[in-house]
Amino acid sequence: MLYRGRDGDKPITESFLDTDFYKFTMGDFIFSDTQLADAVVTLRLKCRTKNIKLGNVIPMTHLREELDHARRLKPTNSELYYLRGMDVYGNRMLSEPYLQFLKNINLPEYNMRYTHEGDIELEFAGPYKSNTYWELFGLSIVNELYHRYALRKCLYSEAEHSRYMMTGLSRLLTKVEKLRQYPDLTFSDFGTRRRASRDWQEEVVEVMATQLPKQFRGTSNVYLAMKYNLVPIGTSAHELFMVAAGLADIESNGDRDAIRASQNEILGAWWDKYGHGLSIALTDTFGTKFTFDNAPAEVTRDWKGTRQDSGDPLRYKQKALQWYRWRDVNPKEKMIVFSDGLDVDSMIRIHKDCQGEIIDTYGWGTNLTNDFEPRPNVGLIPLSLVIKPATVNGRGLVKLSDNIAKAMGIPKDIARYKKIFDYDETYFEPCMY
Amino acid sequence: MLYRGRDGDKPITESFLDTDFYKFTMGDFIFSDTQLADAVVTLRLKCRTKNIKLGNVIPMTHLREELDHARRLKPTNSELYYLRGMDVYGNRMLSEPYLQFLKNINLPEYNMRYTHEGDIELEFAGPYKSNTYWELFGLSIVNELYHRYALRKCLYSEAEHSRYMMTGLSRLLTKVEKLRQYPDLTFSDFGTRRRASRDWQEEVVEVMATQLPKQFRGTSNVYLAMKYNLVPIGTSAHELFMVAAGLADIESNGDRDAIRASQNEILGAWWDKYGHGLSIALTDTFGTKFTFDNAPAEVTRDWKGTRQDSGDPLRYKQKALQWYRWRDVNPKEKMIVFSDGLDVDSMIRIHKDCQGEIIDTYGWGTNLTNDFEPRPNVGLIPLSLVIKPATVNGRGLVKLSDNIAKAMGIPKDIARYKKIFDYDETYFEPCMY
Repeated sequence: MLYRGRDGDKPITESFLDTDFYKFTMGDFIFSDTQLADAVVTLRLKCRTKNIKLGNVIPMTHLREELDHARRLKPTNSELYYLRGMDVYGNRMLSEPYLQFLKNINLPEYNMRYTHEGDIELEFAGPYKSNTYWELFGLSIVNELYHRYALRKCLYSEAEHSRYMMTGLSRLLTKVEKLRQYPDLTFSDFGTRRRASRDWQEEVVEVMATQLPKQFRGTSNVYLAMKYNLVPIGTSAHELFMVAAGLADIESNGDRDAIRASQNEILGAWWDKYGHGLSIALTDTFGTKFTFDNAPAEVTRDWKGTRQDSGDPLRYKQKALQWYRWRDVNPKEKMIVFSDGLDVDSMIRIHKDCQGEIIDTYGWGTNLTNDFEPRPNVGLIPLSLVIKPATVNGRGLVKLSDNIAKAMGIPKDIARYKKIFDYDETYFEPCMY
Repeated sequence: MLYRGRDGDKPITESFLDTDFYKFTMGDFIFSDTQLADAVVTLRLKCRTKNIKLGNVIPMTHLREELDHARRLKPTNSELYYLRGMDVYGNRMLSEPYLQFLKNINLPEYNMRYTHEGDIELEFAGPYKSNTYWELFGLSIVNELYHRYALRKCLYSEAEHSRYMMTGLSRLLTKVEKLRQYPDLTFSDFGTRRRASRDWQEEVVEVMATQLPKQFRGTSNVYLAMKYNLVPIGTSAHELFMVAAGLADIESNGDRDAIRASQNEILGAWWDKYGHGLSIALTDTFGTKFTFDNAPAEVTRDWKGTRQDSGDPLRYKQKALQWYRWRDVNPKEKMIVFSDGLDVDSMIRIHKDCQGEIIDTYGWGTNLTNDFEPRPNVGLIPLSLVIKPATVNGRGLVKLSDNIAKAMGIPKDIARYKKIFDYDETYFEPCMY
């Protein structure tokens, strides 16, 4: 079913599992750590795409309606059974107290304001254990409403709409054809947060699962993984390291060593909780250089690999090879999950570069689930939207990343973190998506 | 979606979970008992409705196709996660070795023969641990094909077909209206084995779940329970007691005491495995009188209650009350699950009779999922089909029940079992369904 109408009565988020798998692995991690669980975290929507005025496109009443609906969602019993019974990454991965907590979860309120300039200020504040879920629900709702209403500005008939959707299908099938030529290239759907619509993501996942069953490893979307019997895929996110650094910042009164130590503490606790099954380290929160220089030898030796989410992927691979060799680890047994603004061509380029040196796989987001013939005149382009933690217990949070254009936080805090983490990266590339 | 075409490309059994819940609880019980697990059990199809010639209605090639498809089915990962994570009746109810076994299950071959008289001889033989699943797949396939092809004999247009389906919907809504007047009357769908079609059962379950959410306790169909987030309902079946008695018969060389003891051994092992959660005792395999006279006091005292599946339900209730009082147990805290050929009126009659004396609930089968305006001229009536164990390791098996019309087994064996179990029941009522 390709075209399901422009609107429909269905709410966008119909299932609490219509989110990224890592929300649950991080969710249990957060819930089970008393300090993290009740820390008050503020999440904020940010649109990194220039000249886009979300507030001029998305009607406020509709956005409220969708957010209010998502706020009331809880996992159903069947969904909880699925989460409890899943054994892809180890037996009984999620703790029973966490599952009981999820059963009755209440998402915190949101604060929303439409500015005179046409921007939408959207903020979620509450205990971290409940608030973290807003990231995905917020992103998929804002993206889908934006896409839906931008479409209405330029398409006036069913036929035009169908034609537009066909451009997406055509691009999708071109991707399939190109990827079929690289049978060793494996990838996963990471596109929930950036999808044009949930129906479209479902279409994409169905096509990939049937057309490239050996290359398509699974989807980060737990609802679709459950429905289509795919592997739910996920690692961990910057937010965990950012919040942990912020808490260390507060507790130590800004002590450099304490803040630097927080990342390794999270990595260690993550390993203790999930072991080898979920051992893909995200390295770029405070710059990959810092991680490679400071992570304990166990991370190099025992973990499956790392995730590359910013900066130059080929340079990243070089640095990863050096890191493994420095620690006498054979990089051929290690994996890099590339997940930064991928398209077919960049995946193929990286794949060729990695061959014989290190295992590569791809977490494919925006360009997989939101790739139609663009209409820039009405702003109908994939957006670079994020919902990131801004503060913990009132303290400003920072992400640096390997591409300083992707840095998050207020300038003063960014400058301070750069010093703390000896950050000297100069790579700068505007976020396309 | 009411009318989905007369045929459709879809196979009838699309999911290994499209079966009764008790197949899995019994399945684990059988798998975990080495003697039961590998005993060779023969299951046989029997049509108890007079003058029905299945073979004159169902095309052999189509039946083969459906059976062959069902034979290749295995639970998907998502379905296994659901089974593993379900905690309605206790935590980790199904054992891990059993779930691993299910993952790679292979159903035994079937033997089928169309006789000159127009009957279908259908038999499944193999280790009990794998063979038991044929019961439900076989029944739902034969029922749906029979219904589909009988319909074709009398309906020649889409409009006629729609009108026929509307008679089912109309009857369903009449049931809802009547039951709404008895808000304390609770019931479950036990109709998988006798459904007109799986699409129709799904329609029925959806209607009941939305129209009578407080009275409709759930469905025995695990696939529908998972899909609609309902409670999977199930107790246990005669087959377990029949096979256990057969094995005792062989092992003891026909010793009366050993055969009589086998039922209590199963009841004890069932309690040891599942505890209070699944403690509804089926009492009529060898006559309820035998069970009430001989079950250990724990069954009277600790179990939730019993299931009534044959004979006069009101007399059953009287006997149950006596049984509880004899053992100084307050019957008001115990439950009877009535499951024998129910319709709305009989449920209401029994419900009124039980009020204030014992807790009553209903497992509603044929009349719930296969109730349309009948066309007896073409045999379009609900059938009384069963697939029951006929032999274990070559030894004939017997069910007596509280209605001798429902007895199963060859006459000589039935006579022998009657003696062994001091069976003196004279109740006889032809099986409507």
